[in-house]
Amino acid sequence: MNLLYGVDSPALAWLKLREHLINRVCPIEELGIMQALGYVLAEDCFAKEDLPYFDCSLVDGYALKATDSFGVSKSSSNYLKLLDRVEIGAKFDSVLLLGTAVAVTAGSALPRGADTVIRLEDTNLLDENTIQVNRSVSPGENVLTVGEDYRKGDLILSKGRKLRAQDIGVLVALGYSELKVFSKPKVAIISIGDELVPPQKKAEMGRIRDVNSYLLSSLVHEAGGLPLRLGIFPDSLEKLTAAIEQGLKIADLVLISGGRRDHTVTAINKLGNPGVFVHGLALKPGKSTAIGLINDKTVFVLPGQPVSVFVAFELLIRPLLQSFTTLPQEIVFGQGRPRIKARLNCHLSSTTGWEEYVQVRLENTLEGIIAHPILDRSRHISAFPLADGFIGIPANTERLEAGEIVEVIVYP
Amino acid sequence: MNLLYGVDSPALAWLKLREHLINRVCPIEELGIMQALGYVLAEDCFAKEDLPYFDCSLVDGYALKATDSFGVSKSSSNYLKLLDRVEIGAKFDSVLLLGTAVAVTAGSALPRGADTVIRLEDTNLLDENTIQVNRSVSPGENVLTVGEDYRKGDLILSKGRKLRAQDIGVLVALGYSELKVFSKPKVAIISIGDELVPPQKKAEMGRIRDVNSYLLSSLVHEAGGLPLRLGIFPDSLEKLTAAIEQGLKIADLVLISGGRRDHTVTAINKLGNPGVFVHGLALKPGKSTAIGLINDKTVFVLPGQPVSVFVAFELLIRPLLQSFTTLPQEIVFGQGRPRIKARLNCHLSSTTGWEEYVQVRLENTLEGIIAHPILDRSRHISAFPLADGFIGIPANTERLEAGEIVEVIVYP
Repeated sequence: MNLLYGVDSPALAWLKLREHLINRVCPIEELGIMQALGYVLAEDCFAKEDLPYFDCSLVDGYALKATDSFGVSKSSSNYLKLLDRVEIGAKFDSVLLLGTAVAVTAGSALPRGADTVIRLEDTNLLDENTIQVNRSVSPGENVLTVGEDYRKGDLILSKGRKLRAQDIGVLVALGYSELKVFSKPKVAIISIGDELVPPQKKAEMGRIRDVNSYLLSSLVHEAGGLPLRLGIFPDSLEKLTAAIEQGLKIADLVLISGGRRDHTVTAINKLGNPGVFVHGLALKPGKSTAIGLINDKTVFVLPGQPVSVFVAFELLIRPLLQSFTTLPQEIVFGQGRPRIKARLNCHLSSTTGWEEYVQVRLENTLEGIIAHPILDRSRHISAFPLADGFIGIPANTERLEAGEIVEVIVYP
Repeated sequence: MNLLYGVDSPALAWLKLREHLINRVCPIEELGIMQALGYVLAEDCFAKEDLPYFDCSLVDGYALKATDSFGVSKSSSNYLKLLDRVEIGAKFDSVLLLGTAVAVTAGSALPRGADTVIRLEDTNLLDENTIQVNRSVSPGENVLTVGEDYRKGDLILSKGRKLRAQDIGVLVALGYSELKVFSKPKVAIISIGDELVPPQKKAEMGRIRDVNSYLLSSLVHEAGGLPLRLGIFPDSLEKLTAAIEQGLKIADLVLISGGRRDHTVTAINKLGNPGVFVHGLALKPGKSTAIGLINDKTVFVLPGQPVSVFVAFELLIRPLLQSFTTLPQEIVFGQGRPRIKARLNCHLSSTTGWEEYVQVRLENTLEGIIAHPILDRSRHISAFPLADGFIGIPANTERLEAGEIVEVIVYP
């Protein structure tokens, strides 16, 4: 608790939040493998069989016994009897003996009795029953042997893995056609305020467009959640309470922006326990952010300024969404975007006791990456299109110097 | 042209491809703003009006004329007549004069005649008609003035911008409810081979699962395209030709994997001009990749090994998909994934004349990031779950030394 202001540091708010939500994860659902890309695996996946399932040729050529090629060269060829051709998907019914060969293509099962494959270009077909072998090949050459990729029972991918395209390929190869994944966290988004109008409505004196619910929906979507925009509600305790109740019913998390903060806090405290447990953050911008818990579901009371909403989302809500589909101990405060190092191009002052976040534009130069703070724009939405990321100034730091190396949290 | 092998370097293949496809972009569609996240903007977006549209208060407090606070301090207060309260969304119908104040909340329109706002905490409400001002405020303090974010006609975002969550917020603020974006490129995916079975089918001798079409679909999806899996076709010229024709009809790009390469090349050359114009790549893995053009649509003939397919996708198909929604000159060969520098932990040999790609595992150490090549696994699909990215060894390089700094193309 920051005694001066009655607010928590963002890191402390995160710890309180985590304490309340330990082990809370989203339900598990089963998806067809083509739908599972980008979801988080909710099961350990083991090889159901050996991969490959059979020895097979990696090249077009002839399967033979390696001993039939020992000592062989262009000037001292060997001649083998060509028995058959094994097409891909077919199998050789007999057993290959010394002095014989079978034609194969890349992917063909290796005929029983053969232990190697010689490439087409290292042979000559003399007549339909005879090949000339012009090179020595070792046992196993140009052959993928059974189980070389996976042995039956091997762990392929662990619970908690966010599935990449390549993972889908591997799982298909091992016979997975459905996967258990964590459902996307559902996030109810509530806008409050008589002044708010939808985007298609013309601007008027005193009215502003409902930016935050669109911004939050997009951020939730980008972070792998399922946004549920409930709409714009008037700033009355009754209407607000009904909206939050609806949100709690359909979602895992409720985000509220706009309206009078005291109304929203009252509504949350009336609806369940423990109610609001973070009453503000030692954070600029974003200080009026409050966090409550109603019967195990989190409710965020967000500031009105879009830039403040964005900072609160990045620091707390993005990692919270991740925690719904991962083991809790793996989630770190402020996590969720890649970070890079850059050199600050000017000094930045900050108020002691407050953690400050400043958006920056990045420039690639021969001397490395330079971060240009977008100054005087912390309250301006017009900083968004210009920025490539943001930097944090810790609460105990009064000033970052020009030329200092800073960590930039970068946008995609 | 690499005269030794009759194949092209990947970079030359890319140049040939770009030459054929100059100015080819996807059609433009109009989407509701909430659907447009992640799409590429196909129009320049200008501010349709000033933002904010009116001067407004950034804090809860009282609007006044700054001159009424000049020289004022805690020990020397001034007293103003409280005229009215302007709620958010409402407006003050009269004009504020010297000696008077109007109560406002953050977001309220600034009353006409006022030029500044004093925070609640810097005042006392003495009775319902009188406030005590305890601090001096300058003109414009705590006020967001009309057009501070954007002036009507300002360029907000340019054609070619991939839309982020924050961009959606900015566009909503300026009244955009629909956006013109480039359609996602449609990609037909064809698997050929009598040996291929779908993932749910049990492994059998000689049969393998259709990994490539699932891998390619997932890669296309991840790269922002729309995959259309046409299914598994037998390796006959007639069936194959029909499948490619179907792909050309519904998609912007056709990807074919498996089957006999000569069949596929014949089918493409029969279907249109110029037919196959890249007959192989000086690339390991991925050398059998061929590229054709049938009446302005590109067809890729991909190798059979999933790792080879992956490398060809990353080097050529991912940037090609990007080029469909961007101005051609902006797209660079091999582009599309973030890159980082890492230190190689062992030496790597390579064949001169061939560009080689090796998957690596990354390790964060106190001395920086170390890249561990996943050796002997270039033909093994089991390298995929272990790898964090890959590195390229240029054609003219025989050996990378242990400790050398390499550029790693990293997976998400």
